[in-house]
Amino acid sequence: MIAGHVPAPYRPGMSRNLDTLKTIDNDLVSRFAAIVGDAHALTIPDDQRPYLIEWRDRFVGKTPVVLRPGSVSEVCAIVRLAGETGTGLVPQGGNTGLVGGQIPFETGTDVVVSLTRLNAIRDVDTDGNTLVAEAGVTLQAVQDAAAARDRFYPLSLASEGSCQIGGTLATNAGGTGVLAYGSARDLCLGIEAVMPDGRVYDGLNRLRKDNTGYDLKDLLIGSEGTLGIITAAVLKLHPKPNAIETVFAGVETPDKALSLFNRLREATGPMLTAFEFIPRIGLDYVLRYAPGSRDPFNDRHPWYALIEVSSGVDHGLRERLETTLTEAFETGEISDAALAETESQRTDFWHLRTMLSEVQRYEGGSIKHDVSVPVSHVPAFIAEASEAVIEMVPGARPVPFGHLGDGNVHFNVSQPVGADRPAFLARWEEMNDLVHAIVLKHGGSISAEHGIGRMKRNELARVKSPVALDLMRAIKAAIDPKGIMNPGKLL
Amino acid sequence: MIAGHVPAPYRPGMSRNLDTLKTIDNDLVSRFAAIVGDAHALTIPDDQRPYLIEWRDRFVGKTPVVLRPGSVSEVCAIVRLAGETGTGLVPQGGNTGLVGGQIPFETGTDVVVSLTRLNAIRDVDTDGNTLVAEAGVTLQAVQDAAAARDRFYPLSLASEGSCQIGGTLATNAGGTGVLAYGSARDLCLGIEAVMPDGRVYDGLNRLRKDNTGYDLKDLLIGSEGTLGIITAAVLKLHPKPNAIETVFAGVETPDKALSLFNRLREATGPMLTAFEFIPRIGLDYVLRYAPGSRDPFNDRHPWYALIEVSSGVDHGLRERLETTLTEAFETGEISDAALAETESQRTDFWHLRTMLSEVQRYEGGSIKHDVSVPVSHVPAFIAEASEAVIEMVPGARPVPFGHLGDGNVHFNVSQPVGADRPAFLARWEEMNDLVHAIVLKHGGSISAEHGIGRMKRNELARVKSPVALDLMRAIKAAIDPKGIMNPGKLL
Repeated sequence: MIAGHVPAPYRPGMSRNLDTLKTIDNDLVSRFAAIVGDAHALTIPDDQRPYLIEWRDRFVGKTPVVLRPGSVSEVCAIVRLAGETGTGLVPQGGNTGLVGGQIPFETGTDVVVSLTRLNAIRDVDTDGNTLVAEAGVTLQAVQDAAAARDRFYPLSLASEGSCQIGGTLATNAGGTGVLAYGSARDLCLGIEAVMPDGRVYDGLNRLRKDNTGYDLKDLLIGSEGTLGIITAAVLKLHPKPNAIETVFAGVETPDKALSLFNRLREATGPMLTAFEFIPRIGLDYVLRYAPGSRDPFNDRHPWYALIEVSSGVDHGLRERLETTLTEAFETGEISDAALAETESQRTDFWHLRTMLSEVQRYEGGSIKHDVSVPVSHVPAFIAEASEAVIEMVPGARPVPFGHLGDGNVHFNVSQPVGADRPAFLARWEEMNDLVHAIVLKHGGSISAEHGIGRMKRNELARVKSPVALDLMRAIKAAIDPKGIMNPGKLL
Repeated sequence: MIAGHVPAPYRPGMSRNLDTLKTIDNDLVSRFAAIVGDAHALTIPDDQRPYLIEWRDRFVGKTPVVLRPGSVSEVCAIVRLAGETGTGLVPQGGNTGLVGGQIPFETGTDVVVSLTRLNAIRDVDTDGNTLVAEAGVTLQAVQDAAAARDRFYPLSLASEGSCQIGGTLATNAGGTGVLAYGSARDLCLGIEAVMPDGRVYDGLNRLRKDNTGYDLKDLLIGSEGTLGIITAAVLKLHPKPNAIETVFAGVETPDKALSLFNRLREATGPMLTAFEFIPRIGLDYVLRYAPGSRDPFNDRHPWYALIEVSSGVDHGLRERLETTLTEAFETGEISDAALAETESQRTDFWHLRTMLSEVQRYEGGSIKHDVSVPVSHVPAFIAEASEAVIEMVPGARPVPFGHLGDGNVHFNVSQPVGADRPAFLARWEEMNDLVHAIVLKHGGSISAEHGIGRMKRNELARVKSPVALDLMRAIKAAIDPKGIMNPGKLL
């Protein structure tokens, strides 16, 4: 995915406050290395590279050493030494984050702590439907371990082969399963984390109900490594969906897509497990660049919906879906629909959706927004934001797609055909400001699922209410008074 | 429900630290009264009584004044004045809490803030499936408002006619709908709260996805009024369940009940919306004392399960349920089962469950535990705890019931027949210690759904890990540095 070092087209978040920077001398590096063993303390640039480059090349960091602890107690020792010496720590999972939270600053003063070697699945309980995974287990490995026991872990992301459970929790990852199953936070019952004072918070409980004080789990989840280092988690498993029906539908307008969504939700309830939307321009990109893709229809439609209903058992899903689609035809909510008849057809439909992020690069620069608005506002938001960016950059091509059922729009904008790529990308922040203002007007969020990291940190400070920011800062100062946990990120 | 002033049979939590107590003079009372108007500042004991007595009479508090603000800005003014003068505030909803969190201490130094007059439903959005309610709206009123728009708010508690939304959120209330829909926290998208500095945290967002910083919503939910006063919330609505099937089943052992639960969960997935269990002794109590109750079966069974499957639409629910019950008969998981044929039969079945809490009082003293363990540990926990309490008090009668699917057991213990009630109740704490030790051994929680309040505060300090307690205290000190929010509760 790494396509040459294109300079980041926008300010990648302020650097750390220089007043608090400590130089890390060789002696200190040796003390850190002694904790994990020299083989797991990477100081040579070639060894460090995979930990320092964000996969889209937006962020390239520096560090005196990448530490790869092999146990929770090694993580504790690292944090204690960091506390004693005022060293910043950057926890890192699979390095798939999209906002730079996992990449150290260019100052080269912060130590990267890769959780990759904490990769045991400690337990699978099929009676209690829980799985205990360490931070470094990949999402794919968790999905597989659940499936091997006839269970289902519903979190699903494009990067699932390499992203790690610790990272999915630190960033409260979303993906395509949120509609029915919730985000990483909703799929987690308890966590274990090393706190900034080097002690272990053992919150690995498997309880569905526990009202004993403040919700520390949900506070740590989504805190992007700024309050502690998650080392393990109890994940919720679900029954394996044995009955799955997948539909690709042509739709005239986002409004009609929304009506269709509401109709399906009423007809199938919690069995509606995906409702993704794609604009025609996005499908064109995929058909143009993704090998093996083909248009399911003869006619062109302005919008498409990828719909999935699924269940642990067959509740007459197909009949219900066919009945509902027939109704939707009659009301005009859909113009065309194809129901997957085989697993390979199902894969083909999903391929059209999953390739969408990747192929946009082949149409030149793309300015991206990961936003959410209340579900009922999605059509108005898309219309207003599209008009605004085209007014700002005549010829710009909005490619809004995403998870309609969650109100989560990936509002990406391709450069005008033939325009100068760097010149277009230079307007990244200006366009962000424009689009985010419309998001805020609709009561939305400037980061639906990717988080803040360093990319949106300055902007967060502008758009979040002063009360919320003060609360967050007070919590950060209370839990990490020395400021060693992922310094300069998020807040 | 108030049955004479029986002295509390156990220590109701330490009083507030006397060092921090301020005397409240008449001048200060007048300043508070001026904010809400004299008609809403209650200083006469008869007027105050409903706000000072917990309904089971365990806690009777004192206060110089009960304030009934009529707007969020009045709440802000109260909090600001409290901050200036170091006055403790006790937020109160419907006064139905079971652990004394809503009752001021006997010191008479803290001011009660009743949210009852903040009772507007600000908005119902049927497209986005959200409802915005102020803190003082009763749970029943929210349920009704949702139903009037063909939607469903699934939180359901015995006290729903009088408990208020603010209180359900401050305590993260549970109830019978948690299995399928989650607790109050899971059913809330955003909150508005007055923080200890008197400013409003406006987190009333309607977003299904929002990854912009720490999860302040989940931190405030369940904090029992110790971090701020919740004034309004965005609640998630669900499709109205139009198809409902209810079964009352006789079961031989808790193990078989657990197998039955797992079978039903696999067969009906998210449509399994209730799985409650009742021991024979509990049914006997209900049949003896609850007018209009009758045993659905001719034979006696050691245990009973009350099962409900429901859905927005009819997914062949009844056929599926009948098939599954037939399988369960064949494996011996159930000994007998009655499927409700009419709405009145359904009500009768639920009556057997909902009356269970209330009728225990007629069998003398009852020592109660609201605990949870991992779902798969419920049978072992019940067996061990029952044996232990009978060994401690020969003749004691365990009445464990509750929400099997959540692992939440209301492990109540009736006094031996004919024993001395006060003498039995005097052993409350001793028995709690015994039972809670077994809970902890199973990785459980000493408060599954009722919270900590003042009743379990000392115990929380003993059973929670020092790391978790330190984190909670640090958060409390950071957000409420003057300690004015519900002082002496929870922590």
